[in-house]
Amino acid sequence: MAVIKVHGNRDSLATVLVLCCLNEKELQYELVQVDLGPVGAQNKPQYLALNPFGQVPTIQDGDLTLFESRAIIKYLANKYKGQGTDLLGNNLSEQALVEQWCEVEGQSFYPLASSIVYETFVMPMSGGGGIDVAAEEKLNKVLDIYEERLSKSKYLAGDFFSLADLQHLPWTHYLMDACRKDRLITSRKHVNSWWKDISSRRAWKMVEIPL
Amino acid sequence: MAVIKVHGNRDSLATVLVLCCLNEKELQYELVQVDLGPVGAQNKPQYLALNPFGQVPTIQDGDLTLFESRAIIKYLANKYKGQGTDLLGNNLSEQALVEQWCEVEGQSFYPLASSIVYETFVMPMSGGGGIDVAAEEKLNKVLDIYEERLSKSKYLAGDFFSLADLQHLPWTHYLMDACRKDRLITSRKHVNSWWKDISSRRAWKMVEIPL
Ligand SMILES: N[C@@H](CCC(=O)N[C@@H](CS)C(=O)NCC(=O)O)C(=O)O
Ligand SMILES: N[C@@H](CCC(=O)N[C@@H](CS)C(=O)NCC(=O)O)C(=O)O
Repeated sequence: MAVIKVHGNRDSLATVLVLCCLNEKELQYELVQVDLGPVGAQNKPQYLALNPFGQVPTIQDGDLTLFESRAIIKYLANKYKGQGTDLLGNNLSEQALVEQWCEVEGQSFYPLASSIVYETFVMPMSGGGGIDVAAEEKLNKVLDIYEERLSKSKYLAGDFFSLADLQHLPWTHYLMDACRKDRLITSRKHVNSWWKDISSRRAWKMVEIPL
Repeated sequence: MAVIKVHGNRDSLATVLVLCCLNEKELQYELVQVDLGPVGAQNKPQYLALNPFGQVPTIQDGDLTLFESRAIIKYLANKYKGQGTDLLGNNLSEQALVEQWCEVEGQSFYPLASSIVYETFVMPMSGGGGIDVAAEEKLNKVLDIYEERLSKSKYLAGDFFSLADLQHLPWTHYLMDACRKDRLITSRKHVNSWWKDISSRRAWKMVEIPL
């Protein structure tokens, strides 16, 4: 089996998500470094031919070239269902709940988490930034719903670890370690246990996490 | 086969997306009206028991309760693959490209389109609003990439209509009809042909489209 190529960057959380998934699936990969920056390699014709959006990551698996980190991990979970950790659930209903909580991450959790990281961690590096009060308030409400959900099932989609949990690793890590927003997690009993559980997985610890 | 219940609202674009998908799959459904508003039915305990986020739509199909419109249409396309229009592609690579372009819609197209609709259509109703120049500029760049893609394949994921195209119907319709941003589409040859094609599908015309 040819090794999967990951065009990406270890400082990119979207890349880190894909690497963690590859570890869960016990798949070999080769990381092809793409140097990011204002005039970075992501905007050179060679890379744009792989991904016209000029963003990392993009994978190549045999003849297939694929970008968008959440689409990539779904593809890996599907194609290699029988190998490593199953991340999809075992029937249509379980799979649907995995998809549902993946969408919650992409549409509700991520826009808020990334806006907080931007304001409290990225912007201050160049002297700007502040506190995004509205985003924090909204994220608190979202996490209240997670708390309720995780009081009823061990993981988001049910009693099995899935893509939905995996998708939360990179940005929650940043919220806690880069932004010192630990209280978002630790103030909620079930969210806290869930975080301790998923962030101590071997596949996650194997990734060289930025920061 | 029990009829699928859709808790939703005809004025909600996320609901409209699900209804259009049900039509493509030739599935019977019952629309259970949820009256939205500042103190709307979406925040009453009865509805929150179905969807703790207090948003429409939510479906019930047998024992399964499912929310997040994009997760719902994926579930329908999966469960009823053999019925109506196939929306997923016929092998792992096609499916992966469908997922990729669905993610592009959710992560790149939708945040920009909805921000433009908000500023130029929703806000002016209460005397506010303006022109979101940054969002329009970014959306133009995204649509340039669509133009290039659609010069090579008839639809986003390949030469077959899929969930990825379907996901673009409600918000593009609003951009064009509510916001008069037709030029975003009509100024691009291949995007324009694609739009004419997908917006004339029977499943879409069957939906009573808001506006
Ligand atoms: N929706 C994309 C987002 C990818 C993304 O934002 N990549 C960033 C790094 S985490 C990037 O390439 N930034 C460089 C640039 O946009 O120029 C995904 O999930 O893969
Ligand atoms: N990500 C959700 C968004 C759903 C959504 O935004 N629904 C709106 C109507 S289109 C709603 O229920 N708004 C009422 C509220 O938020 O109170 C989905 O795709 O289903």
